[in-house]
Amino acid sequence: MQLMRLGPPGSERPAVRTADGMVHDLSGVTPDIDGAFLAGGGIDRVRKALEQGALPRVSDDGLRVGPPVARPAAVICVGLNYAAHAAESGAEPPKAPVVFFKHPGTLAGPDDETVIPDGSERTDWEVELAVVIGRRAERLSSPEEALRHIAGYAIANDLSERTWQLEHSGGQWSKGKCAPGFNPLGPWLVPADEIDDPQALRLRSWVNGEPRQDSTTADMIFPVARIVHHLSHYMALEPGDVIDTGTPEGVAMSGRFPYLKPGDVVELEIEELGRQRQVMTSGTKKEQAA
Amino acid sequence: MQLMRLGPPGSERPAVRTADGMVHDLSGVTPDIDGAFLAGGGIDRVRKALEQGALPRVSDDGLRVGPPVARPAAVICVGLNYAAHAAESGAEPPKAPVVFFKHPGTLAGPDDETVIPDGSERTDWEVELAVVIGRRAERLSSPEEALRHIAGYAIANDLSERTWQLEHSGGQWSKGKCAPGFNPLGPWLVPADEIDDPQALRLRSWVNGEPRQDSTTADMIFPVARIVHHLSHYMALEPGDVIDTGTPEGVAMSGRFPYLKPGDVVELEIEELGRQRQVMTSGTKKEQAA
Repeated sequence: MQLMRLGPPGSERPAVRTADGMVHDLSGVTPDIDGAFLAGGGIDRVRKALEQGALPRVSDDGLRVGPPVARPAAVICVGLNYAAHAAESGAEPPKAPVVFFKHPGTLAGPDDETVIPDGSERTDWEVELAVVIGRRAERLSSPEEALRHIAGYAIANDLSERTWQLEHSGGQWSKGKCAPGFNPLGPWLVPADEIDDPQALRLRSWVNGEPRQDSTTADMIFPVARIVHHLSHYMALEPGDVIDTGTPEGVAMSGRFPYLKPGDVVELEIEELGRQRQVMTSGTKKEQAA
Repeated sequence: MQLMRLGPPGSERPAVRTADGMVHDLSGVTPDIDGAFLAGGGIDRVRKALEQGALPRVSDDGLRVGPPVARPAAVICVGLNYAAHAAESGAEPPKAPVVFFKHPGTLAGPDDETVIPDGSERTDWEVELAVVIGRRAERLSSPEEALRHIAGYAIANDLSERTWQLEHSGGQWSKGKCAPGFNPLGPWLVPADEIDDPQALRLRSWVNGEPRQDSTTADMIFPVARIVHHLSHYMALEPGDVIDTGTPEGVAMSGRFPYLKPGDVVELEIEELGRQRQVMTSGTKKEQAA
Protein backbone atom coordinates (compact mmCIF):
# COMPACT_ATOMS: atom_id res chain seq x y z
CA MET A 1 0.00 0.00 0.00
CA GLN A 2 0.98 3.60 -0.52
CA LEU A 3 0.32 6.31 2.03
CA MET A 4 -0.47 9.73 0.60
CA ARG A 5 -1.59 13.18 1.62
CA LEU A 6 -4.06 14.86 -0.76
CA GLY A 7 -5.24 18.45 -0.95
CA PRO A 8 -3.97 22.04 -0.91
CA PRO A 9 -0.69 22.88 0.87
CA GLY A 10 -1.25 22.90 4.61
CA SER A 11 -4.69 21.28 4.29
CA GLU A 12 -3.78 17.82 3.03
CA ARG A 13 -5.90 14.85 4.09
CA PRO A 14 -4.41 11.44 4.70
CA ALA A 15 -5.19 8.68 2.21
CA VAL A 16 -4.01 5.24 1.20
CA ARG A 17 -3.70 3.80 -2.29
CA THR A 18 -4.03 0.05 -2.59
CA ALA A 19 -2.59 -2.40 -5.12
CA ASP A 20 -5.72 -2.10 -7.28
CA GLY A 21 -5.07 1.64 -7.70
CA MET A 22 -8.03 2.61 -5.52
CA VAL A 23 -7.62 5.47 -3.06
CA HIS A 24 -9.22 5.40 0.40
CA ASP A 25 -9.67 8.22 2.88
CA LEU A 26 -7.76 7.83 6.16
CA SER A 27 -9.35 10.71 8.06
CA GLY A 28 -11.23 8.20 10.22
CA VAL A 29 -7.97 6.51 11.22
CA THR A 30 -5.70 9.51 11.76
CA PRO A 31 -5.84 13.28 11.39
CA ASP A 32 -2.57 13.18 9.46
CA ILE A 33 0.43 11.10 8.45
CA ASP A 34 3.10 12.30 10.81
CA GLY A 35 5.53 11.12 13.44
CA ALA A 36 2.82 10.39 16.00
CA PHE A 37 0.89 8.28 13.47
CA LEU A 38 3.98 6.32 12.44
CA ALA A 39 5.23 5.76 16.01
CA GLY A 40 1.75 4.79 17.23
CA GLY A 41 1.26 1.76 15.04
CA GLY A 42 -0.59 3.75 12.39
CA ILE A 43 0.50 1.60 9.47
CA ASP A 44 -0.88 -1.52 11.18
CA ARG A 45 -4.15 0.29 11.90
CA VAL A 46 -4.48 1.22 8.24
CA ARG A 47 -3.89 -2.38 7.18
CA LYS A 48 -6.53 -3.63 9.59
CA ALA A 49 -9.03 -1.01 8.46
CA LEU A 50 -8.42 -1.97 4.82
CA GLU A 51 -8.95 -5.67 5.61
CA GLN A 52 -12.21 -4.80 7.32
CA GLY A 53 -13.31 -2.72 4.36
CA ALA A 54 -13.74 0.15 6.79
CA LEU A 55 -12.17 2.90 4.69
CA PRO A 56 -14.34 5.01 2.34
CA ARG A 57 -13.09 5.25 -1.21
CA VAL A 58 -12.28 8.72 -2.50
CA SER A 59 -11.41 10.11 -5.88
CA ASP A 60 -8.01 11.73 -6.24
CA ASP A 61 -8.97 13.24 -9.61
CA GLY A 62 -7.60 16.75 -9.80
CA LEU A 63 -6.39 16.71 -6.22
CA ARG A 64 -2.90 17.96 -5.49
CA VAL A 65 -0.59 15.37 -3.99
CA GLY A 66 1.28 16.69 -0.95
CA PRO A 67 4.42 15.36 0.69
CA PRO A 68 3.42 12.05 2.30
CA VAL A 69 4.70 13.02 5.76
CA ALA A 70 3.63 16.12 7.65
CA ARG A 71 5.92 18.33 9.69
CA PRO A 72 9.03 16.18 10.19
CA ALA A 73 11.12 17.40 13.11
CA ALA A 74 14.12 17.30 10.81
CA VAL A 75 15.14 16.70 7.21
CA ILE A 76 18.61 15.19 7.37
CA CYS A 77 20.74 14.71 4.26
CA VAL A 78 23.65 12.45 3.49
CA GLY A 79 26.03 13.90 0.92
CA LEU A 80 28.37 12.22 -1.56
CA ASN A 81 26.91 8.76 -0.92
CA TYR A 82 27.49 7.43 -4.44
CA ALA A 83 31.12 7.14 -5.57
CA ALA A 84 30.50 8.33 -9.14
CA HIS A 85 28.64 11.41 -7.87
CA ALA A 86 31.45 12.20 -5.42
CA ALA A 87 33.83 12.03 -8.38
CA GLU A 88 31.71 14.33 -10.59
CA SER A 89 31.55 16.77 -7.63
CA GLY A 90 35.34 16.79 -7.41
CA ALA A 91 35.32 15.05 -4.01
CA GLU A 92 36.83 11.88 -2.61
CA PRO A 93 34.40 9.16 -1.52
CA PRO A 94 33.77 9.92 2.17
CA LYS A 95 35.01 7.68 5.00
CA ALA A 96 31.83 8.23 7.02
CA PRO A 97 28.42 9.64 6.08
CA VAL A 98 28.61 13.38 5.37
CA VAL A 99 25.62 14.97 7.09
CA PHE A 100 23.82 18.27 6.69
CA PHE A 101 20.24 19.49 7.19
CA LYS A 102 17.50 21.12 5.16
CA HIS A 103 14.88 23.36 6.73
CA PRO A 104 11.74 21.15 7.00
CA GLY A 105 9.83 24.00 5.34
CA THR A 106 11.47 22.89 2.09
CA LEU A 107 9.08 19.93 1.82
CA ALA A 108 6.78 20.16 -1.19
CA GLY A 109 4.45 17.90 -3.09
CA PRO A 110 6.02 15.68 -5.75
CA ASP A 111 4.38 17.57 -8.63
CA ASP A 112 4.36 21.10 -7.20
CA GLU A 113 5.97 23.80 -9.29
CA THR A 114 9.51 24.54 -8.13
CA VAL A 115 10.47 28.20 -7.85
CA ILE A 116 14.04 28.87 -8.94
CA PRO A 117 14.87 31.52 -6.36
CA ASP A 118 15.82 35.04 -7.44
CA GLY A 119 19.54 35.36 -7.78
CA SER A 120 20.04 31.64 -8.41
CA GLU A 121 22.18 30.71 -11.40
CA ARG A 122 22.97 27.12 -10.48
CA THR A 123 19.80 25.31 -9.37
CA ASP A 124 20.37 21.57 -9.67
CA TRP A 125 18.34 18.36 -9.27
CA GLU A 126 19.17 15.31 -7.13
CA VAL A 127 17.01 12.19 -7.12
CA GLU A 128 17.32 10.45 -3.74
CA LEU A 129 15.86 7.59 -1.78
CA ALA A 130 14.22 9.19 1.27
CA VAL A 131 13.95 7.19 4.49
CA VAL A 132 11.17 8.08 6.94
CA ILE A 133 11.82 7.17 10.59
CA GLY A 134 9.08 5.24 12.41
CA ARG A 135 10.44 4.94 15.95
CA ARG A 136 12.76 7.11 18.00
CA ALA A 137 16.27 5.92 17.19
CA GLU A 138 19.08 6.67 19.63
CA ARG A 139 22.39 4.79 19.84
CA LEU A 140 21.07 1.74 18.06
CA SER A 141 23.06 -1.46 18.50
CA SER A 142 23.34 -2.54 14.86
CA PRO A 143 22.37 -1.78 11.27
CA GLU A 144 19.82 -4.59 11.52
CA GLU A 145 18.18 -2.89 14.48
CA ALA A 146 18.22 0.35 12.49
CA LEU A 147 16.08 -1.22 9.76
CA ARG A 148 13.35 -1.85 12.34
CA HIS A 149 13.21 1.90 13.04
CA ILE A 150 12.31 2.79 9.46
CA ALA A 151 8.63 3.42 8.70
CA GLY A 152 9.00 3.56 4.95
CA TYR A 153 10.51 5.00 1.83
CA ALA A 154 9.75 7.77 -0.64
CA ILE A 155 11.34 9.73 -3.49
CA ALA A 156 13.01 13.05 -2.67
CA ASN A 157 14.43 15.71 -4.93
CA ASP A 158 17.24 17.28 -2.91
CA LEU A 159 17.26 20.49 -4.94
CA SER A 160 20.43 22.53 -4.55
CA GLU A 161 21.70 25.99 -5.45
CA ARG A 162 25.36 25.18 -6.03
CA THR A 163 26.82 28.68 -5.66
CA TRP A 164 24.94 29.22 -2.42
CA GLN A 165 25.86 25.71 -1.23
CA LEU A 166 29.57 25.94 -2.00
CA GLU A 167 30.51 29.63 -1.95
CA HIS A 168 28.14 31.58 0.32
CA SER A 169 28.59 29.87 3.67
CA GLY A 170 32.24 29.11 4.31
CA GLY A 171 31.84 25.57 2.98
CA GLN A 172 28.76 24.64 5.05
CA TRP A 173 26.24 23.38 2.51
CA SER A 174 22.82 24.04 4.05
CA LYS A 175 22.52 27.59 2.73
CA GLY A 176 22.18 26.22 -0.79
CA LYS A 177 19.70 23.52 0.18
CA CYS A 178 16.89 25.41 1.89
CA ALA A 179 15.01 27.56 -0.61
CA PRO A 180 11.23 27.15 -0.28
CA GLY A 181 10.07 24.04 -2.14
CA PHE A 182 13.57 22.62 -2.44
CA ASN A 183 12.57 19.16 -1.18
CA PRO A 184 9.69 17.65 -3.18
CA LEU A 185 8.77 14.40 -1.42
CA GLY A 186 6.53 11.55 -2.54
CA PRO A 187 4.09 10.87 -4.12
CA TRP A 188 3.93 7.93 -1.71
CA LEU A 189 5.27 6.72 1.56
CA VAL A 190 5.66 2.97 1.00
CA PRO A 191 5.90 0.95 4.22
CA ALA A 192 9.37 -0.49 4.79
CA ASP A 193 8.11 -4.06 4.96
CA GLU A 194 6.72 -3.78 1.44
CA ILE A 195 10.12 -2.98 -0.06
CA ASP A 196 12.04 -6.23 -0.58
CA ASP A 197 15.46 -4.63 -0.63
CA PRO A 198 16.05 -0.88 -0.29
CA GLN A 199 19.51 -1.45 -1.78
CA ALA A 200 18.18 -2.78 -5.09
CA LEU A 201 16.07 0.10 -6.40
CA ARG A 202 16.72 1.76 -9.74
CA LEU A 203 16.57 5.54 -9.44
CA ARG A 204 16.40 7.90 -12.40
CA SER A 205 15.89 11.52 -13.33
CA TRP A 206 15.15 13.42 -16.54
CA VAL A 207 15.12 17.07 -17.58
CA ASN A 208 12.72 17.93 -20.41
CA GLY A 209 12.46 14.22 -21.15
CA GLU A 210 16.23 13.72 -21.53
CA PRO A 211 17.85 11.23 -19.18
CA ARG A 212 20.10 12.63 -16.46
CA GLN A 213 20.58 10.15 -13.60
CA ASP A 214 20.18 6.39 -13.93
CA SER A 215 21.66 4.34 -11.12
CA THR A 216 20.70 1.92 -8.40
CA THR A 217 20.66 2.18 -4.63
CA ALA A 218 23.02 -0.82 -4.72
CA ASP A 219 25.74 1.75 -5.49
CA MET A 220 25.35 3.62 -2.18
CA ILE A 221 28.62 3.87 -0.28
CA PHE A 222 26.71 3.72 3.03
CA PRO A 223 23.53 1.67 2.72
CA VAL A 224 20.32 2.74 4.44
CA ALA A 225 20.73 0.51 7.49
CA ARG A 226 24.23 1.82 8.11
CA ILE A 227 23.15 5.44 7.69
CA VAL A 228 20.36 5.15 10.27
CA HIS A 229 22.57 3.20 12.69
CA HIS A 230 25.40 5.71 12.28
CA LEU A 231 23.21 8.80 12.64
CA SER A 232 21.60 7.38 15.79
CA HIS A 233 25.00 7.67 17.51
CA TYR A 234 25.20 11.38 16.77
CA MET A 235 21.57 12.42 17.32
CA ALA A 236 18.22 11.04 18.42
CA LEU A 237 16.17 10.46 15.27
CA GLU A 238 12.49 11.14 15.80
CA PRO A 239 9.45 9.45 14.25
CA GLY A 240 8.62 11.28 11.04
CA ASP A 241 12.19 12.47 10.44
CA VAL A 242 13.13 12.34 6.77
CA ILE A 243 16.61 11.25 5.68
CA ASP A 244 17.66 12.00 2.09
CA THR A 245 20.26 9.32 1.44
CA GLY A 246 22.32 10.96 -1.30
CA THR A 247 22.19 11.22 -5.07
CA PRO A 248 23.93 9.29 -7.84
CA GLU A 249 25.89 10.83 -10.73
CA GLY A 250 24.25 12.87 -13.46
CA VAL A 251 23.58 16.29 -11.94
CA ALA A 252 24.32 19.66 -13.56
CA MET A 253 27.28 20.29 -11.24
CA SER A 254 29.11 17.59 -13.20
CA GLY A 255 29.48 20.09 -16.06
CA ARG A 256 27.80 17.66 -18.44
CA PHE A 257 24.34 19.32 -18.33
CA PRO A 258 23.01 22.88 -18.00
CA TYR A 259 21.54 24.07 -14.72
CA LEU A 260 17.77 24.43 -14.46
CA LYS A 261 15.91 27.40 -15.92
CA PRO A 262 12.26 28.46 -15.81
CA GLY A 263 10.11 26.21 -17.96
CA ASP A 264 12.29 23.14 -17.52
CA VAL A 265 10.50 19.97 -16.46
CA VAL A 266 12.27 17.69 -13.98
CA GLU A 267 11.05 14.12 -13.57
CA LEU A 268 12.26 11.63 -10.99
CA GLU A 269 11.50 7.96 -10.56
CA ILE A 270 12.48 5.28 -8.09
CA GLU A 271 11.38 1.71 -8.61
CA GLU A 272 8.35 0.83 -6.41
CA LEU A 273 8.11 4.42 -5.13
CA GLY A 274 6.41 6.20 -8.02
CA ARG A 275 7.32 9.28 -9.99
CA GLN A 276 7.67 13.05 -9.49
CA ARG A 277 7.32 15.85 -12.05
CA GLN A 278 8.20 19.47 -11.32
CA VAL A 279 7.92 22.45 -13.66
CA MET A 280 10.54 25.10 -12.86
CA THR A 281 9.29 28.66 -12.52
CA SER A 282 11.03 31.95 -11.83
CA GLY A 283 10.93 33.56 -8.40
CA THR A 284 9.03 36.75 -7.76
CA LYS A 285 11.31 39.64 -8.53
CA LYS A 286 12.10 40.93 -5.09
CA GLU A 287 15.44 42.18 -3.88
CA GLN A 288 18.54 40.10 -4.65
CA ALA A 289 20.06 37.92 -2.00
CA ALA A 290 21.43 40.05 0.81
CA MET B 1 8.03 40.16 30.97
CA GLN B 2 9.61 36.76 30.56
CA LEU B 3 7.86 33.87 28.86
CA MET B 4 8.64 30.45 30.28
CA ARG B 5 7.63 26.82 30.03
CA LEU B 6 7.50 24.93 33.34
CA GLY B 7 7.23 21.24 34.06
CA PRO B 8 8.66 17.86 33.04
CA PRO B 9 10.13 17.40 29.56
CA GLY B 10 7.32 17.12 27.03
CA SER B 11 4.68 18.25 29.55
CA GLU B 12 5.71 21.87 30.11
CA ARG B 13 3.01 24.45 30.78
CA PRO B 14 3.28 28.02 29.55
CA ALA B 15 3.89 30.75 32.10
CA VAL B 16 4.94 34.36 32.32
CA ARG B 17 7.21 36.00 34.86
CA THR B 18 6.62 39.68 35.52
CA ALA B 19 8.97 42.43 36.67
CA ASP B 20 8.00 41.81 40.31
CA GLY B 21 9.29 38.22 40.04
CA MET B 22 5.79 36.73 40.18
CA VAL B 23 4.93 33.83 37.86
CA HIS B 24 1.52 33.51 36.24
CA ASP B 25 0.01 30.54 34.47
CA LEU B 26 -0.69 31.04 30.75
CA SER B 27 -2.71 27.88 30.14
CA GLY B 28 -5.85 29.98 29.83
CA VAL B 29 -4.25 32.06 27.07
CA THR B 30 -2.46 29.40 25.05
CA PRO B 31 -1.81 25.66 25.22
CA ASP B 32 1.89 26.31 24.63
CA ILE B 33 4.52 28.85 23.61
CA ASP B 34 5.21 27.90 20.04
CA GLY B 35 5.21 29.28 16.52
CA ALA B 36 1.43 29.51 16.32
CA PHE B 37 1.29 31.45 19.60
CA LEU B 38 4.02 33.87 18.53
CA ALA B 39 2.60 34.41 15.02
CA GLY B 40 -0.94 34.83 16.33
CA GLY B 41 -0.33 37.87 18.50
CA GLY B 42 0.21 35.77 21.60
CA ILE B 43 2.61 38.19 23.28
CA ASP B 44 0.03 41.00 22.99
CA ARG B 45 -2.65 38.72 24.42
CA VAL B 46 -0.44 37.93 27.40
CA ARG B 47 0.17 41.64 28.04
CA LYS B 48 -3.54 42.35 27.89
CA ALA B 49 -4.35 39.49 30.24
CA LEU B 50 -1.70 40.69 32.69
CA GLU B 51 -3.13 44.23 32.63
CA GLN B 52 -6.57 42.84 33.33
CA GLY B 53 -5.22 40.77 36.21
CA ALA B 54 -6.70 37.75 34.47
CA LEU B 55 -3.79 35.36 34.94
CA PRO B 56 -3.65 33.07 38.01
CA ARG B 57 -0.40 33.18 39.95
CA VAL B 58 1.51 29.93 40.24
CA SER B 59 4.50 28.83 42.22
CA ASP B 60 7.55 27.74 40.25
CA ASP B 61 9.15 26.26 43.36
CA GLY B 62 10.82 23.00 42.46
CA LEU B 63 9.45 23.03 38.95
CA ARG B 64 11.81 22.26 36.10
CA VAL B 65 12.27 25.08 33.62
CA GLY B 66 11.92 23.89 30.02
CA PRO B 67 13.08 25.56 26.84
CA PRO B 68 10.84 28.63 26.40
CA VAL B 69 9.75 27.68 22.87
CA ALA B 70 8.16 24.36 21.94
CA ARG B 71 8.90 22.40 18.80
CA PRO B 72 10.64 24.93 16.55
CA ALA B 73 10.53 23.86 12.91
CA ALA B 74 14.26 24.50 12.77
CA VAL B 75 17.25 25.41 14.91
CA ILE B 76 19.57 27.38 12.66
CA CYS B 77 23.09 28.31 13.73
CA VAL B 78 25.49 31.00 12.58
CA GLY B 79 29.13 30.01 12.97
CA LEU B 80 32.25 32.12 13.48
CA ASN B 81 30.25 35.30 14.09
CA TYR B 82 32.77 36.88 16.50
CA ALA B 83 36.19 37.73 15.07
CA ALA B 84 38.15 36.62 18.14
CA HIS B 85 36.36 33.27 18.19
CA ALA B 86 37.03 32.77 14.48
CA ALA B 87 40.71 33.41 15.24
CA GLU B 88 40.81 30.94 18.17
CA SER B 89 39.16 28.37 15.88
CA GLY B 90 41.89 28.87 13.29
CA ALA B 91 39.48 30.40 10.78
CA GLU B 92 39.28 33.68 8.90
CA PRO B 93 36.36 35.99 9.77
CA PRO B 94 33.64 34.97 7.30
CA LYS B 95 32.49 37.22 4.45
CA ALA B 96 28.86 36.12 4.88
CA PRO B 97 27.07 34.31 7.70
CA VAL B 98 28.17 30.67 7.94
CA VAL B 99 25.03 28.59 8.43
CA PHE B 100 24.38 25.09 9.72
CA PHE B 101 21.53 23.37 11.54
CA LYS B 102 20.97 21.48 14.76
CA HIS B 103 18.28 18.82 15.12
CA PRO B 104 15.42 20.55 17.02
CA GLY B 105 15.42 17.55 19.36
CA THR B 106 18.58 19.04 20.89
CA LEU B 107 16.50 21.63 22.75
CA ALA B 108 16.73 21.24 26.54
CA GLY B 109 15.86 23.24 29.59
CA PRO B 110 18.44 25.79 30.76
CA ASP B 111 19.28 23.82 33.90
CA ASP B 112 18.85 20.28 32.64
CA GLU B 113 21.79 17.93 33.09
CA THR B 114 23.83 17.63 29.91
CA VAL B 115 24.88 14.15 28.89
CA ILE B 116 28.38 14.04 27.42
CA PRO B 117 27.73 11.40 24.78
CA ASP B 118 29.61 8.12 24.82
CA GLY B 119 32.71 8.33 22.70
CA SER B 120 32.97 12.10 23.07
CA GLU B 121 36.37 13.47 24.05
CA ARG B 122 35.90 17.08 23.02
CA THR B 123 32.53 18.39 24.28
CA ASP B 124 32.64 22.18 24.33
CA TRP B 125 30.39 25.05 25.49
CA GLU B 126 29.24 28.06 23.45
CA VAL B 127 27.17 30.85 25.00
CA GLU B 128 25.02 32.45 22.28
CA LEU B 129 22.26 34.98 21.86
CA ALA B 130 19.29 33.02 20.46
CA VAL B 131 16.76 34.79 18.26
CA VAL B 132 13.21 33.41 18.09
CA ILE B 133 11.25 34.21 14.92
CA GLY B 134 7.75 35.64 15.35
CA ARG B 135 6.49 35.96 11.78
CA ARG B 136 7.23 34.03 8.61
CA ALA B 137 10.26 35.74 7.07
CA GLU B 138 10.94 35.27 3.37
CA ARG B 139 13.05 37.57 1.19
CA LEU B 140 12.75 40.51 3.55
CA SER B 141 13.53 43.93 2.11
CA SER B 142 15.92 45.22 4.79
CA PRO B 143 17.59 44.48 8.14
CA GLU B 144 15.10 46.91 9.71
CA GLU B 145 12.21 44.86 8.39
CA ALA B 146 13.96 41.76 9.73
CA LEU B 147 13.85 43.14 13.28
CA ARG B 148 10.05 43.26 13.06
CA HIS B 149 10.02 39.50 12.41
CA ILE B 150 11.75 38.65 15.69
CA ALA B 151 9.52 37.56 18.59
CA GLY B 152 12.20 37.66 21.23
CA TYR B 153 15.55 36.61 22.60
CA ALA B 154 16.93 33.87 24.85
CA ILE B 155 20.22 32.31 25.94
CA ALA B 156 21.41 29.22 24.07
CA ASN B 157 24.32 26.91 24.78
CA ASP B 158 25.36 25.63 21.34
CA LEU B 159 27.12 22.57 22.73
CA SER B 160 29.56 20.98 20.30
CA GLU B 161 31.57 17.79 20.03
CA ARG B 162 34.60 19.11 18.17
CA THR B 163 35.95 15.86 16.79
CA TRP B 164 32.53 14.90 15.46
CA GLN B 165 32.00 18.44 14.13
CA LEU B 166 35.33 18.76 12.36
CA GLU B 167 36.53 15.25 11.54
CA HIS B 168 33.56 12.87 11.20
CA SER B 169 31.52 14.46 8.43
CA GLY B 170 33.78 15.68 5.64
CA GLY B 171 33.83 19.18 7.11
CA GLN B 172 30.04 19.57 7.51
CA TRP B 173 29.58 20.61 11.13
CA SER B 174 26.09 19.39 12.09
CA LYS B 175 27.20 15.91 13.12
CA GLY B 176 29.00 17.40 16.12
CA LYS B 177 26.12 19.67 17.09
CA CYS B 178 23.16 17.32 17.46
CA ALA B 179 23.62 15.05 20.47
CA PRO B 180 20.49 14.92 22.66
CA GLY B 181 20.36 17.91 24.97
CA PHE B 182 23.02 19.83 23.04
CA ASN B 183 20.99 23.05 22.88
CA PRO B 184 19.86 24.24 26.34
CA LEU B 185 17.59 27.24 25.74
CA GLY B 186 16.22 29.79 28.17
CA PRO B 187 15.27 30.20 30.97
CA TRP B 188 13.19 32.95 29.38
CA LEU B 189 11.97 34.19 26.05
CA VAL B 190 12.11 37.97 26.44
CA PRO B 191 9.96 39.84 23.90
CA ALA B 192 12.03 41.72 21.34
CA ASP B 193 10.47 45.08 22.19
CA GLU B 194 11.70 44.76 25.78
CA ILE B 195 15.35 44.54 24.71
CA ASP B 196 16.67 48.04 24.06
CA ASP B 197 19.53 46.93 21.85
CA PRO B 198 20.29 43.29 21.01
CA GLN B 199 23.78 44.42 19.99
CA ALA B 200 24.68 45.71 23.45
CA LEU B 201 24.32 42.63 25.65
CA ARG B 202 27.15 41.23 27.73
CA LEU B 203 27.38 37.45 27.39
CA ARG B 204 29.46 35.27 29.65
CA SER B 205 30.18 31.66 30.52
CA TRP B 206 31.91 29.84 33.35
CA VAL B 207 33.06 26.27 33.98
CA ASN B 208 33.17 25.24 37.64
CA GLY B 209 32.94 28.89 38.57
CA GLU B 210 35.96 29.94 36.49
CA PRO B 211 35.33 32.51 33.77
CA ARG B 212 35.53 31.30 30.18
CA GLN B 213 33.72 33.67 27.79
CA ASP B 214 33.11 37.37 28.50
CA SER B 215 32.15 39.46 25.51
CA THR B 216 29.36 41.58 24.14
CA THR B 217 26.97 41.13 21.26
CA ALA B 218 28.40 44.43 19.98
CA ASP B 219 31.30 42.31 18.71
CA MET B 220 29.16 40.24 16.33
CA ILE B 221 30.47 40.36 12.76
CA PHE B 222 26.89 40.07 11.44
CA PRO B 223 24.38 41.67 13.81
CA VAL B 224 21.01 40.07 14.47
CA ALA B 225 19.07 42.20 11.97
CA ARG B 226 21.49 41.36 9.20
CA ILE B 227 21.46 37.65 10.03
CA VAL B 228 17.66 37.42 9.83
CA HIS B 229 17.53 39.54 6.66
CA HIS B 230 20.28 37.48 5.05
CA LEU B 231 18.82 34.08 6.00
CA SER B 232 15.41 35.11 4.68
CA HIS B 233 16.92 35.22 1.19
CA TYR B 234 18.06 31.61 1.43
CA MET B 235 15.11 30.04 3.27
CA ALA B 236 11.67 30.88 4.62
CA LEU B 237 12.04 31.33 8.37
CA GLU B 238 8.99 30.11 10.29
CA PRO B 239 7.43 31.44 13.49
CA GLY B 240 9.11 29.68 16.38
CA ASP B 241 12.36 29.02 14.53
CA VAL B 242 15.40 29.47 16.76
CA ILE B 243 18.58 31.08 15.43
CA ASP B 244 21.77 30.67 17.49
CA THR B 245 23.78 33.71 16.48
CA GLY B 246 27.32 32.52 17.19
CA THR B 247 29.66 32.43 20.16
CA PRO B 248 32.48 34.71 21.29
CA GLU B 249 36.02 33.62 22.17
CA GLY B 250 36.78 31.52 25.21
CA VAL B 251 35.79 27.95 24.30
CA ALA B 252 37.84 24.82 24.91
CA MET B 253 38.70 24.49 21.21
CA SER B 254 40.98 27.50 21.70
CA GLY B 255 43.42 25.23 23.54
CA ARG B 256 43.32 27.51 26.57
CA PHE B 257 40.86 25.38 28.58
CA PRO B 258 40.12 21.67 29.00
CA TYR B 259 37.09 20.10 27.34
CA LEU B 260 34.11 19.21 29.51
CA LYS B 261 34.03 16.08 31.68
CA PRO B 262 31.35 14.51 33.86
CA GLY B 263 30.78 16.55 37.01
CA ASP B 264 31.73 19.86 35.43
CA VAL B 265 29.26 22.70 35.90
CA VAL B 266 28.70 25.08 33.00
CA GLU B 267 27.03 28.42 33.64
CA LEU B 268 25.95 30.93 31.02
CA GLU B 269 24.58 34.42 31.36
CA ILE B 270 23.38 37.09 28.98
CA GLU B 271 22.38 40.50 30.26
CA GLU B 272 18.58 40.83 30.54
CA LEU B 273 18.07 37.19 29.52
CA GLY B 274 18.86 35.34 32.73
CA ARG B 275 21.23 32.50 33.50
CA GLN B 276 21.71 28.81 32.71
CA ARG B 277 23.46 26.12 34.74
CA GLN B 278 24.18 22.63 33.47
CA VAL B 279 25.86 19.75 35.28
CA MET B 280 27.69 17.46 32.86
CA THR B 281 27.03 13.74 33.21
CA SER B 282 28.35 10.69 31.40
CA GLY B 283 26.31 8.91 28.74
CA THR B 284 24.92 5.45 29.27
CA LYS B 285 27.55 2.95 28.29
CA LYS B 286 26.18 1.56 25.08
CA GLU B 287 28.12 0.75 21.96
CA GLN B 288 30.68 3.27 20.70
CA ALA B 289 29.84 5.52 17.79
CA ALA B 290 29.36 3.46 14.65
